[in-house]
Amino acid sequence: MAKEELIDLAMTRDPRGVVIQRVGIKDLHIPLQIKKRDNGFQEVLGNVTLGVELPHKYRGTHMSRLVEIVSQWSRKPLGGHDVRLILDQVRNKLKADQAHITVKFKYFISKKAPVSKSVSALDYDCEFTGNLSNEGFDFILGVEVPIATVCPCSKEISKYGAHNQRGVIRARIRYEKGKFYWIEDLIEQLETLGSHELYPMLKRIDEKYVTEHGYENPKFIEDVLRDAVVMFRANEHISWFEVECETFESIHNHSVYAYQQECLKQPKLR
Amino acid sequence: MAKEELIDLAMTRDPRGVVIQRVGIKDLHIPLQIKKRDNGFQEVLGNVTLGVELPHKYRGTHMSRLVEIVSQWSRKPLGGHDVRLILDQVRNKLKADQAHITVKFKYFISKKAPVSKSVSALDYDCEFTGNLSNEGFDFILGVEVPIATVCPCSKEISKYGAHNQRGVIRARIRYEKGKFYWIEDLIEQLETLGSHELYPMLKRIDEKYVTEHGYENPKFIEDVLRDAVVMFRANEHISWFEVECETFESIHNHSVYAYQQECLKQPKLR
Amino acid sequence: MAKEELIDLAMTRDPRGVVIQRVGIKDLHIPLQIKKRDNGFQEVLGNVTLGVELPHKYRGTHMSRLVEIVSQWSRKPLGGHDVRLILDQVRNKLKADQAHITVKFKYFISKKAPVSKSVSALDYDCEFTGNLSNEGFDFILGVEVPIATVCPCSKEISKYGAHNQRGVIRARIRYEKGKFYWIEDLIEQLETLGSHELYPMLKRIDEKYVTEHGYENPKFIEDVLRDAVVMFRANEHISWFEVECETFESIHNHSVYAYQQECLKQPKLR
Amino acid sequence: MAKEELIDLAMTRDPRGVVIQRVGIKDLHIPLQIKKRDNGFQEVLGNVTLGVELPHKYRGTHMSRLVEIVSQWSRKPLGGHDVRLILDQVRNKLKADQAHITVKFKYFISKKAPVSKSVSALDYDCEFTGNLSNEGFDFILGVEVPIATVCPCSKEISKYGAHNQRGVIRARIRYEKGKFYWIEDLIEQLETLGSHELYPMLKRIDEKYVTEHGYENPKFIEDVLRDAVVMFRANEHISWFEVECETFESIHNHSVYAYQQECLKQPKLR
Repeated sequence: MAKEELIDLAMTRDPRGVVIQRVGIKDLHIPLQIKKRDNGFQEVLGNVTLGVELPHKYRGTHMSRLVEIVSQWSRKPLGGHDVRLILDQVRNKLKADQAHITVKFKYFISKKAPVSKSVSALDYDCEFTGNLSNEGFDFILGVEVPIATVCPCSKEISKYGAHNQRGVIRARIRYEKGKFYWIEDLIEQLETLGSHELYPMLKRIDEKYVTEHGYENPKFIEDVLRDAVVMFRANEHISWFEVECETFESIHNHSVYAYQQECLKQPKLR
Repeated sequence: MAKEELIDLAMTRDPRGVVIQRVGIKDLHIPLQIKKRDNGFQEVLGNVTLGVELPHKYRGTHMSRLVEIVSQWSRKPLGGHDVRLILDQVRNKLKADQAHITVKFKYFISKKAPVSKSVSALDYDCEFTGNLSNEGFDFILGVEVPIATVCPCSKEISKYGAHNQRGVIRARIRYEKGKFYWIEDLIEQLETLGSHELYPMLKRIDEKYVTEHGYENPKFIEDVLRDAVVMFRANEHISWFEVECETFESIHNHSVYAYQQECLKQPKLR
Repeated sequence: MAKEELIDLAMTRDPRGVVIQRVGIKDLHIPLQIKKRDNGFQEVLGNVTLGVELPHKYRGTHMSRLVEIVSQWSRKPLGGHDVRLILDQVRNKLKADQAHITVKFKYFISKKAPVSKSVSALDYDCEFTGNLSNEGFDFILGVEVPIATVCPCSKEISKYGAHNQRGVIRARIRYEKGKFYWIEDLIEQLETLGSHELYPMLKRIDEKYVTEHGYENPKFIEDVLRDAVVMFRANEHISWFEVECETFESIHNHSVYAYQQECLKQPKLR
Repeated sequence: MAKEELIDLAMTRDPRGVVIQRVGIKDLHIPLQIKKRDNGFQEVLGNVTLGVELPHKYRGTHMSRLVEIVSQWSRKPLGGHDVRLILDQVRNKLKADQAHITVKFKYFISKKAPVSKSVSALDYDCEFTGNLSNEGFDFILGVEVPIATVCPCSKEISKYGAHNQRGVIRARIRYEKGKFYWIEDLIEQLETLGSHELYPMLKRIDEKYVTEHGYENPKFIEDVLRDAVVMFRANEHISWFEVECETFESIHNHSVYAYQQECLKQPKLR
């Protein structure tokens, strides 16, 4: 049977009169290139979710075309501009008013140990989210930055020591119109907000520094969140942010968290 | 050193002028009782996240009081009314304008196999979300219902057979003011929306029925979502819903999904 | 078509001549009762994997009978004796030489805060593993105990403070013939092996104690593991153990771990 | 304080007399290059666990040296030979009798759709495990291959249709001395064992083929496992294998599984 003869059920008329806000593919893995701040590109493992608005008249969308479009970016650079290109293609090929994408990936950044200056690369979970409709293009950058917090209360009330633990800052930002922000810039700003930074490789001389520096900078999760909020409010490149801090308490078997979302400027879609 | 003499750093004044929208405890496990539709209670394993708004003047909140309040509900019934009671206590004890809670748990419902009528209990992930502020009380019920879909396109174009797979409907609803909706009712409505239902125990005579019934009711993920939307729009007990369907395609290594969120009536907080 | 007329493909002869070591059901959820040391039972959420050896002559096993047998234990007590009963039934009903089960569940134990004596319940992941064959019955108890470690090196080389973090001891033991060991006993022994214990609820006076106690008891992961090994070797109730310690380092974004497995006595199956 | 003056607590004598079988780092992420069968290398995201045996006399190992050694392979080719080189370095630098490594990564292989011949890349979870001691070098290759199964019983007893679902074959093999086996070869062999293969991109003409081909090749999980066992037994390159098949049943909310492990030849370590 020739391909043309196979009926296309997705294109049959749907009687329910329901516009579907988003329908598509989820958790498709694909290798991608991410542009680095210094120069060149970093190859990453991408996890893609890509969907479209479906007009009420069609019964289904064409999932294979979504896979086809994304596959063209395999092992190719993917920046904000490319996210928009993908969504443009999706809107055209699927005749959709809106298209939406999320791309998650782990990104490495070289770090120097504070004293020995030994270099090693730390991994950060990152995320691009894009939305394209007749109203314009919306882009969100997300990062997860591991931190550590030394508890101020524990330090204050104890004769010596202070409980501390690993935590994470999960931040998402919308750029102000015409502005741009590197992943590296966002991560570097956020990872100073804990009591001390994390490193893959630390010599003893570094461990001494990190321990003492952390003890000198005790922070509640409320402190970390507020410092992030103050930092975001002062950032002219950003029109909106969402931030959640979570620490995996070493004295409990549960976490503590703090959350904030603020619209700093009226959104102007591109 | 007496307890009273230990300084309470959380209560010191904070200079940053930032009201924190939500701060608290996360992923605390506790056994709870959930009221069943027929009668009695079901003991479940709860996962609790509980947070408060923190005024700008205080440096921190009192995490241990949040644990203390939740712990009172250990092995006790927890319904929408109790969710409100918890948030009330939290607001009072922590002098907070807003309080927010999420409780996740796995809930069992007995199912009869379609032909043999053998009884077994299927598990569903459920969630209560509550928010209490000066503007009133907001409650959301969430359920995850496993389904199966038989692909209409695959059935239509193939000489025989049709690919099918497990999937899930994740739905969250806001009750209309003064209305109530049982977990069982919501789940029973949603699990009819796939091509066929799932059961822990099926005899061969049931497997025959389920297979044939599924083949007679092929459904795209778009069909499942639209049927859910139509069902929610017609439901007078509901003022808002959010629904995501996802199927773990048997011909791909990725999922397909469909998503909708609709406000059916202006929210009237209780 | 009557049930009896439906062909049972599983019972057809298989030509490949391969005895399957284990085949069955996995990740079936069921509520269970676990006997407590003090008295009474605790209701838990069980996750069951149950399999049998399949003789070379049969093409398949009867999965629905496995579900049927397990379902009889729904909301009923499940101890080592019941594990054996289940495996006995499985062997009989499925005419299998061997049967194997794993049951995972979260178990709560009440803990008193060290100074205020406030009571709250901490959750522990536990596991029963049973195997029954012509050679006898084998039973393994597994527990995961959250701990905290204060780094001795960091304390030693730093002017003040010491990095610390949450970790976990994952231990599995085989009882010596005729001996018995409570979950509570095993957990209580293991949770003293970290620098300090974890609690759901701590008042400031407790936090002071825990912090100072941890600082006074710094432990490498090697120390925790060795103390566990020494403890197990001295335990007459145990004929075999496996233990893994892992700590979620607060100065790194990776874990450190230590692992040991020892057969203390020749296994005598019951 | 100079680096040299910092005491090295790990090297202090330990009084407990316990040789630790394995201690080291876990879940360290690092980008790596994997050699492809056709030619060239594929960059992957690696997850590394690396440990050593610790003599009874030392209190601790040097975790930072483990990180240092692994970091040298960042963005460099990693094959079986390199795994051995890493373990050699680890043994030398840490004066350890034994060293052990596990490297997990997602690997892409291009697949042609069965009729349209459209090309897209499917992702597979893979794993290298290496062990080096005075007795020699042991290497294990592990892969996870997604499959689909169409139920023979459901097909046999139903008027039309048959339930089917996604599943996975998790296989680990030891090479026979002096033999070698490509990841691609192992995956290609295993993925023919389901009812049909999976593809990221399928046109309708392919979906028709895949559906019909699956319906013509119904397989119990027992069939998949036995075919894998027969295949491994006939493979001269392999001295040992372990295989688990699991399918995510579309008529149940649990999985079914089958497991086998066989030593085909006496191990001769390299």
